[in-house]
Amino acid sequence: MTLNETNTSPDNGDGNPSAHAPGMPVVAVIGDGQLARMMHTEAIELGQSVRLLAGAADASAAQVAADVVIGDYTNIDDLRRALKGADVMTFDHEHVPTEHLRQLISEGVNVQPGPDALVNAQDKLVMRKRLRELGAPVPPFAAIDNVEDALAFSEAVDGQVCLKARRGGYDGHGVWFPEGRDELEELVVKLLDAGTALMAEKKVALTRELSAMVARTPSGETAAWPVVESVQRGGVCAEAVAPAPELSPQLQDSTRGLAERIATELGVTGVLAVELFETRDANGQPEIFVNELAMRPHNTGHWTQDGCVTSQFEQHLRAVLDYPLGSTDTLAGYTVMANVLAADVDPEQPMARRMAEVWRRYPNAKIHLYGKGFRPGRKIGHVNMVGEDLATVRAEARAAANYLVNATWS
Amino acid sequence: MTLNETNTSPDNGDGNPSAHAPGMPVVAVIGDGQLARMMHTEAIELGQSVRLLAGAADASAAQVAADVVIGDYTNIDDLRRALKGADVMTFDHEHVPTEHLRQLISEGVNVQPGPDALVNAQDKLVMRKRLRELGAPVPPFAAIDNVEDALAFSEAVDGQVCLKARRGGYDGHGVWFPEGRDELEELVVKLLDAGTALMAEKKVALTRELSAMVARTPSGETAAWPVVESVQRGGVCAEAVAPAPELSPQLQDSTRGLAERIATELGVTGVLAVELFETRDANGQPEIFVNELAMRPHNTGHWTQDGCVTSQFEQHLRAVLDYPLGSTDTLAGYTVMANVLAADVDPEQPMARRMAEVWRRYPNAKIHLYGKGFRPGRKIGHVNMVGEDLATVRAEARAAANYLVNATWS
Repeated sequence: MTLNETNTSPDNGDGNPSAHAPGMPVVAVIGDGQLARMMHTEAIELGQSVRLLAGAADASAAQVAADVVIGDYTNIDDLRRALKGADVMTFDHEHVPTEHLRQLISEGVNVQPGPDALVNAQDKLVMRKRLRELGAPVPPFAAIDNVEDALAFSEAVDGQVCLKARRGGYDGHGVWFPEGRDELEELVVKLLDAGTALMAEKKVALTRELSAMVARTPSGETAAWPVVESVQRGGVCAEAVAPAPELSPQLQDSTRGLAERIATELGVTGVLAVELFETRDANGQPEIFVNELAMRPHNTGHWTQDGCVTSQFEQHLRAVLDYPLGSTDTLAGYTVMANVLAADVDPEQPMARRMAEVWRRYPNAKIHLYGKGFRPGRKIGHVNMVGEDLATVRAEARAAANYLVNATWS
Repeated sequence: MTLNETNTSPDNGDGNPSAHAPGMPVVAVIGDGQLARMMHTEAIELGQSVRLLAGAADASAAQVAADVVIGDYTNIDDLRRALKGADVMTFDHEHVPTEHLRQLISEGVNVQPGPDALVNAQDKLVMRKRLRELGAPVPPFAAIDNVEDALAFSEAVDGQVCLKARRGGYDGHGVWFPEGRDELEELVVKLLDAGTALMAEKKVALTRELSAMVARTPSGETAAWPVVESVQRGGVCAEAVAPAPELSPQLQDSTRGLAERIATELGVTGVLAVELFETRDANGQPEIFVNELAMRPHNTGHWTQDGCVTSQFEQHLRAVLDYPLGSTDTLAGYTVMANVLAADVDPEQPMARRMAEVWRRYPNAKIHLYGKGFRPGRKIGHVNMVGEDLATVRAEARAAANYLVNATWS
């Protein structure tokens, strides 16, 4: 390879020095999905270029980045290769083993968020115990180490059991709603036998899901975005509506405050998503419970790309680099994000043509695609629509996202 | 090189196939500056990845892109290498030789904008003749092929001569204001002897400069942004204020219409910037003259990144791909863009630290940096500020841009 023929990384596997402007920080992102991809977008505008540890050269983020180390995030030597010369290590997922993070920190690596915070996004039981200690609202829960635990918990919550894998769940995976004692017993035996660490919590009669997102720097500054409504279909986020409609200003404020307090108490750095259940209390008043935490940009924050002064991706980079945080002011009354979830059958009309059809109808549709191939149900992009009339914005975002996967106007 | 070691292009010099999602169009951008860099940003969000023809692997755009062919845009074989498999060829500058473009078109390449349009951005005399034919407002002008032409023109315009190189000028280069006959004569002889093709036009008593930007697709759709005021210092754009303050709605509309008409009549595709002079007519009423044309995203359009639904970079990609164009609606009352122009001396405080200081004071400052090293006067970035109060927005944008190069609050 000569410079005259093609650009790109040197062969030493330690990344591409040409990708980084002299004197600008290098953020190593462990992961190659759409979150890393969209961090790269924002990094470019800040005069930077992320370094990726990617599983494959054609993965979503690796496609578009100039400095990509191919490797395995469970292999500490691969992590070390990706971190060489980087100012900070961050993530687009929570799956890097904690022991590797501790080892890397002992070697001087600046890991943001650190393992003590991150464990709360990795282990649902640890997180619930910690939040309960903090007085944050969580549903009744218990560790499930055997069938007896499960049956006792079931009795305590009148059979309203939600069983969860402590680690590794996402998009509805790792969550079960057993009907009755027999099904619960059978499920617990099967899962524990398979080595799945379990917990259970009381099934919540939720009215809807909300999401409160906040960023925090190592210096302790926090900045929260407005709380959004997150619409799930089949356990997968389908839409986010920002701000959450019909949420009282008091609950909007207290929920933002809760997210900031969780970020601070847990020592989170970067972006934190607090997934919430909204229910009705005994008096029929809305109340909220924390469902999950994610410590990275999050699907329910994609709307910030087009609806806020500072997107979650820019904010994450600023936060992990300990820069002052950006304004979370909105740019319009409402922003609706609709996920582009691949249909069961990929339409014959090519995606590029579908984009054109969407834009012909909606010149203000902000289409974001991740460079991912077709697989039924896969998140391959999202559409943001911004405006003042919620019904219009929402209908248009849905129609646009639907057209991108079905090539028909529903 | 093994996949296990590092990402990136194959060694064949025809780009990096991993950089492009299957079925998505490939836009080949000839050029490696900040305009190409910011096209890449937008391409990523559209599920694409630009292919660059760059002069060096560490050039502004090449730093951050995954598919970079290193070569010389005046060499047709290098152009061919960069174009292999691309759906369309476009530019971040106007300097690709016309004969190469015609040859490539004869080989089936989709060149947008095409050479017949582009010549109007390459040759100032051709452009003025064409615009005069169209009835567009241009100052009196003449070809200057010898000293006699120059003296005759000078007499006709009462000595108010602006002499221009027909080709290759930018940022005040290639423009002269000779004082008196002797200086004019001397200058013309010197320049013609040096092989510089010349034209002259009447020096305009301008009250300010404006810029009207529009995009046009090969299918003929046009979309114009609001006309902005462009503030020049030392021949270089220092600020753009959008929309142009105190421009009557009639003149705002007619100027947008003029830009759309020029784009259509000249067959421009992609983004067109019409640089304008505002003067006062005999009755003291504002009137405008066309100064220059640029057929690509333009410095006076950077504000659209944060101030508009559709940025000029996204719009350029959509236009050259013949997609429907995006909304040019603004997101706030005013957006001010201030260029980050390197100072005479680079401050000791590192740029990353300067960014932090700017953000500490202005959490809503949108900083865009180009990954360029220090050189006095060089455009190394810009800051966009968006808001409702023009004086505030303008002062903040200026202060932020100034801090980034001087490390002091003026």
